Amino acid sequence: MRDIAVAADLSPGNLYTYFRGKDEILFFCQDRALDRLLAALARARTARGPLAARLHGLAVAHVLCLVDDVDGSAAHLEVDALPARLRAPIVAKRDRYERGVRALVAAGIRRGDLGPTDPTVATRAFLGALNWTAHWFRPDGPHPADRVARIVADYAVRGLAPGEPAERGENERRTA
Amino acid sequence: MRDIAVAADLSPGNLYTYFRGKDEILFFCQDRALDRLLAALARARTARGPLAARLHGLAVAHVLCLVDDVDGSAAHLEVDALPARLRAPIVAKRDRYERGVRALVAAGIRRGDLGPTDPTVATRAFLGALNWTAHWFRPDGPHPADRVARIVADYAVRGLAPGEPAERGENERRTA
Repeated sequence: MRDIAVAADLSPGNLYTYFRGKDEILFFCQDRALDRLLAALARARTARGPLAARLHGLAVAHVLCLVDDVDGSAAHLEVDALPARLRAPIVAKRDRYERGVRALVAAGIRRGDLGPTDPTVATRAFLGALNWTAHWFRPDGPHPADRVARIVADYAVRGLAPGEPAERGENERRTA
Repeated sequence: MRDIAVAADLSPGNLYTYFRGKDEILFFCQDRALDRLLAALARARTARGPLAARLHGLAVAHVLCLVDDVDGSAAHLEVDALPARLRAPIVAKRDRYERGVRALVAAGIRRGDLGPTDPTVATRAFLGALNWTAHWFRPDGPHPADRVARIVADYAVRGLAPGEPAERGENERRTA
């Protein structure tokens, strides 16, 4: 709590005015991060254009949220660190976000904007590529956050694009 | 230790013959999982054919290793759970694996098998899509492990394929 108080330029006593302890601060960070993700999802839902482009905007916002100084990089991933009473609403909110992303992926597959695949598994792989950024990104690394977000989003959306699986392509070349 | 002993069909006393405690078991699981990953990397290095197909084989093996019953799903991801003396060799081995994967990705980009991108960031996104499987895969889920590994690998390798970024495609369509 002392470290957090120093970082927030508050006295530890003042910090306790707002939060009952570390759990409540972690909850606040996770809840706030999920609100940002849900706002990005709402934008992707109402945007016009191909689903790939709308998911790209979502992916950039998702990565930027994870690596944001204020909302705390891995904060919203550490849901297991919360006590059960605080974990349940966070898990429900996270599930709502994931269902929303999956609905966009499924719509993209139906319309042919994205390649045919299992939307549930592909959505998890898509979110995995994004979420993993919180594990390795360092603010003092070679690329700034917005460039990393762009590269990761390019990768993550291209994974959903129409096209032949790699090994099928190879077999076809072999028999050609 | 008691639960592990029951699962391994050993008495807790017998288990202590092999391991000094939970840390040593976690180390053993992580080390073994990394040996499997390094073996898959060696196969991908020496295989012939386009880099995309070789990375696809690696990706399938990577996911199957993570969701394997015996080697313990998330075992090799929980490196922070190890004390420093056991963590260092695991981190070194993991870094060796990641450098090897990155070298394959970089070779694919140079040869034009893969699209132009930052090989370091793209490799981390690729590994993120694979690693995330350990977070969500359930053996009693709708798809068996080998099908999940195939879908995730298809996704992860397609993310590296040549092609236009989604949003650039959209802009071009807008001005067409």
